[in-house]
Amino acid sequence: MSSQLLRVQCFNVSQDGFGAGEGQSLERPFGHADPAPLWSWAGATASWVNRTDPGGTRGLDDYLTRDHTRNIGAEIMGRNKFGPQRGPWENHEWQGWWGDTPPFHTPVFVLTHHERPSFTLADTTFHFLDATPAEALARAKQAAGGRDVRLGGGVATVREFIEAGLVDTMHIAVAPVELGRGERLWESHTDLLDRFHLDTVPSPSGVTHLLFWRR
Amino acid sequence: MSSQLLRVQCFNVSQDGFGAGEGQSLERPFGHADPAPLWSWAGATASWVNRTDPGGTRGLDDYLTRDHTRNIGAEIMGRNKFGPQRGPWENHEWQGWWGDTPPFHTPVFVLTHHERPSFTLADTTFHFLDATPAEALARAKQAAGGRDVRLGGGVATVREFIEAGLVDTMHIAVAPVELGRGERLWESHTDLLDRFHLDTVPSPSGVTHLLFWRR
Repeated sequence: MSSQLLRVQCFNVSQDGFGAGEGQSLERPFGHADPAPLWSWAGATASWVNRTDPGGTRGLDDYLTRDHTRNIGAEIMGRNKFGPQRGPWENHEWQGWWGDTPPFHTPVFVLTHHERPSFTLADTTFHFLDATPAEALARAKQAAGGRDVRLGGGVATVREFIEAGLVDTMHIAVAPVELGRGERLWESHTDLLDRFHLDTVPSPSGVTHLLFWRR
Repeated sequence: MSSQLLRVQCFNVSQDGFGAGEGQSLERPFGHADPAPLWSWAGATASWVNRTDPGGTRGLDDYLTRDHTRNIGAEIMGRNKFGPQRGPWENHEWQGWWGDTPPFHTPVFVLTHHERPSFTLADTTFHFLDATPAEALARAKQAAGGRDVRLGGGVATVREFIEAGLVDTMHIAVAPVELGRGERLWESHTDLLDRFHLDTVPSPSGVTHLLFWRR
């Protein structure tokens, strides 16, 4: 295993394996799915990256949210995590869902068949790459300054990197909710057990943390 | 809660509540207790501070060992963690159990009624304080450069800081072994529930992680 890992952290799916609903739009980044029941376990913790007020829990879930940023030097995401547009860019005004201060604080590599110029918001720079997963990972590791790379999603991007054999560790939180349709991460997570070790850890908050690491 | 926390991390006890056996000596830091069954869960992980070879697990237990050093800027320990001597120092030759490169990499404050000069081994400096828990914590926070302070043990020192109301978070790993006698952390951990929230997390490795945080 390389000393620089490719890690999925705090990626949330429903009990039936969906990471997002159907019909993503500007108003509904998760499509028909209500993101609250998928994400509330993370938002309740003291260390969650988007927390603005003091307080929050410091139990098991907090250990998981702390690792979302620990030793991360770059993020790779698919175009569907960056925004709702498909096909050629109509303009470059859209700069992601996250406002003037995105919560990444590192270089971010957005995979797309339609490249566009890099731009910087606060301490996050977005680059756009038309590249294979292996090429994108090489670029991201170079930019990460010796730190690990986080694979941020969405679902199709996580699947693509798993299939390319590039993912070292994965934390998937299974929320106690069913979505019925949308972007599916897996039929069953047991499909991955030929390639990964797995710890299954039920949390007092109601989610189940699945912790995978490469065999 | 202060932005600088006092944290207990990876402190191991037996099912019957003992953190060390009876009869500590130079040869047996844990007295009659065999430390292996208390510590083996941590030693198996990829991130354990004393790991020398590559490899190791990256599941739940690894999240816990990673936090042993994350954002720690100083350690406080009792004299019984530092060494087996009691009473006035016969000489200053003893420099702890850890050889030329102690695994702390920060200032360490050793509580003792018998002060002695500070000394440095690699990137760890040991200071010796005859002080109350609150005084020692103030010194350690000052030395920690904005980071948290780890309370390293032993048992008597952890109890003393709990009783003084100074501990913010605590990770205690309960190993599937009984010691019968020795240094007892508690009769029952439920005694602490008036002062702490608790997540109880059984690990696939066989230990149970108890995660406390201040109410």
